[in-house]
Amino acid sequence: MVAALGSWTEGSARGAIEEFLARVTEPNGSGHVEPAARVAVFDNDGTLWCEKPMQPQLDFTIQRLREMADHDVELRTRQPWQAAHTGDLTWLNEALIKHYRGDDSDLAVLMDGVTRAFGEISVEEYQQRVSGFFRTSAHPSLARPYRDCGYAPMAELLRVLDEHGFTSYIASGGDRDFMRPVARTLYGVPPERVIGSSLGLTYRAGAGRAELLYEPTMDFFDDGPEKPVRIWSRIGRRPILSVGNSNGDIPMLAFSELPGAPALRMLVRHDDAQREFDYDAGAEEALDHADRNGWTVVSMRNDWTRVFADPAAKLLGPMGRLPRESDVSDNDSRDTCG
Amino acid sequence: MVAALGSWTEGSARGAIEEFLARVTEPNGSGHVEPAARVAVFDNDGTLWCEKPMQPQLDFTIQRLREMADHDVELRTRQPWQAAHTGDLTWLNEALIKHYRGDDSDLAVLMDGVTRAFGEISVEEYQQRVSGFFRTSAHPSLARPYRDCGYAPMAELLRVLDEHGFTSYIASGGDRDFMRPVARTLYGVPPERVIGSSLGLTYRAGAGRAELLYEPTMDFFDDGPEKPVRIWSRIGRRPILSVGNSNGDIPMLAFSELPGAPALRMLVRHDDAQREFDYDAGAEEALDHADRNGWTVVSMRNDWTRVFADPAAKLLGPMGRLPRESDVSDNDSRDTCG
Repeated sequence: MVAALGSWTEGSARGAIEEFLARVTEPNGSGHVEPAARVAVFDNDGTLWCEKPMQPQLDFTIQRLREMADHDVELRTRQPWQAAHTGDLTWLNEALIKHYRGDDSDLAVLMDGVTRAFGEISVEEYQQRVSGFFRTSAHPSLARPYRDCGYAPMAELLRVLDEHGFTSYIASGGDRDFMRPVARTLYGVPPERVIGSSLGLTYRAGAGRAELLYEPTMDFFDDGPEKPVRIWSRIGRRPILSVGNSNGDIPMLAFSELPGAPALRMLVRHDDAQREFDYDAGAEEALDHADRNGWTVVSMRNDWTRVFADPAAKLLGPMGRLPRESDVSDNDSRDTCG
Repeated sequence: MVAALGSWTEGSARGAIEEFLARVTEPNGSGHVEPAARVAVFDNDGTLWCEKPMQPQLDFTIQRLREMADHDVELRTRQPWQAAHTGDLTWLNEALIKHYRGDDSDLAVLMDGVTRAFGEISVEEYQQRVSGFFRTSAHPSLARPYRDCGYAPMAELLRVLDEHGFTSYIASGGDRDFMRPVARTLYGVPPERVIGSSLGLTYRAGAGRAELLYEPTMDFFDDGPEKPVRIWSRIGRRPILSVGNSNGDIPMLAFSELPGAPALRMLVRHDDAQREFDYDAGAEEALDHADRNGWTVVSMRNDWTRVFADPAAKLLGPMGRLPRESDVSDNDSRDTCG
């Protein structure tokens, strides 16, 4: 089956994509780009999947922090355990909004909790915890499992890019190893093409198996000017297509160009309160850049015929958790991995 | 054409490779490994190409340090510029040997020079300098350009792995961005599959093009216990095949195994004074590990019918430099990129 942009309306965003793809693939055209140089990068939170009312990674972390507070009374009066214990999403979300506005004070408090929550476990154990989370956890208000919270039009775009000889990477501020176990199912992106933030890792060899354990410190936070650094480190090329949705994506988009070649830079704008959410907070500067530099703004409301793929919402139990694991099939009818 | 191990003698090393490949690819066999998990990692210096009397990267660096000393008299009495200026390979090589033995004092002095030599230039400018080096520079004693100093049996192995559904990465202590411009020509390995050490990088956006510049500090040195860390960071999987040649490769080899799956760990032993070099310095502990853990030791003298591919040695001018750029074709008759 030929992949197509069926979830995109016949508007300017779809037109910009189609024109760009035609130019770079036209064999003798002035904008032709050899397949090896057709590199695309996608932010994840708010670009490929829903990030409101909180990023899925934050919910995963909250569940872990809540577990810790359940076992340790003293933690319940300290952030971020207090917020997790009382379910105070406001404090947690504000920490991220503050970060996008240049104030990292609460983010530092949050990250201290996160690093304590996952320090000293092996990379394989973390993988299993993440996979378990996606088997059992659901979005708190959209009435669908987190693993059905990827944007259908973006999954389509990824398949269209595959068919046009592109290699697509996720380049996210989120935790690299949190996205890896599900990126192939959601987006058709294998683990080696997931770039993101990371805790430090320590190698430990003993009598048994050689292990890699997370350290209770961040190795790096892959956002803002760090994004082009991590993209170069991993790929060794500049992208020619990049998609983001917030101020932290500006350097990634600005870096995505080759001399004499077409480039497509896109910003997903969350203006769809009915089907998803409506917010520009943390994206003001990026939208301003888009306006001044001719980057393509994708309006969720106007440019997408649908936000999420079928199957439609599933019945959820109390607390937004899925009622039973057996209700969630491991094989979605929509297989996004062309 | 089906790739084959024609440069490998019918010995135990070739047998171990063939048995391993048969096991992991046998569709219903107990050792079957799905293609996505067929990940192979190769050290570079002394494993894929010649590292004596010095690593090609060191020669590249010496040329740059010599340039600096030519312009600044004061540098000529300080290491590493003094060694570069007087052509004192002993000091430089000893710095690396000491490192492999756990003494990093001279390596620190060398790295300080290296970081000063390449700080503040853009990633693209560095690429051009490296490409220029490989167009014009030759091995000091083997009478062949550096770009013909890759081991033919290893290039064959990489092609055989391609045909068996493997994805192969370079995982080297050498500078990542030094290997990238030539890894495809020498080994058929694209830049996104080159893992190695790196200087720090800084993003700079101004009125013109957004740039990435090297910082005058190391970001990390990808050797020893850092190798598994970098492999995981980049790939998100454990390898099942790994090849090295020195003590710094021990953690990488130990990390290369999946539960219940076959694993092949190999060490290239330099015991061929006639065709290449004969040395175990810096590999003593690794050879001991191989002996105790059943890792496969590849004897260059006994296991390889040839070390380097044709075309044979080219006539060199004074100082081991190629007489004219036009004497070196960009298109080798042997194209290793299947």
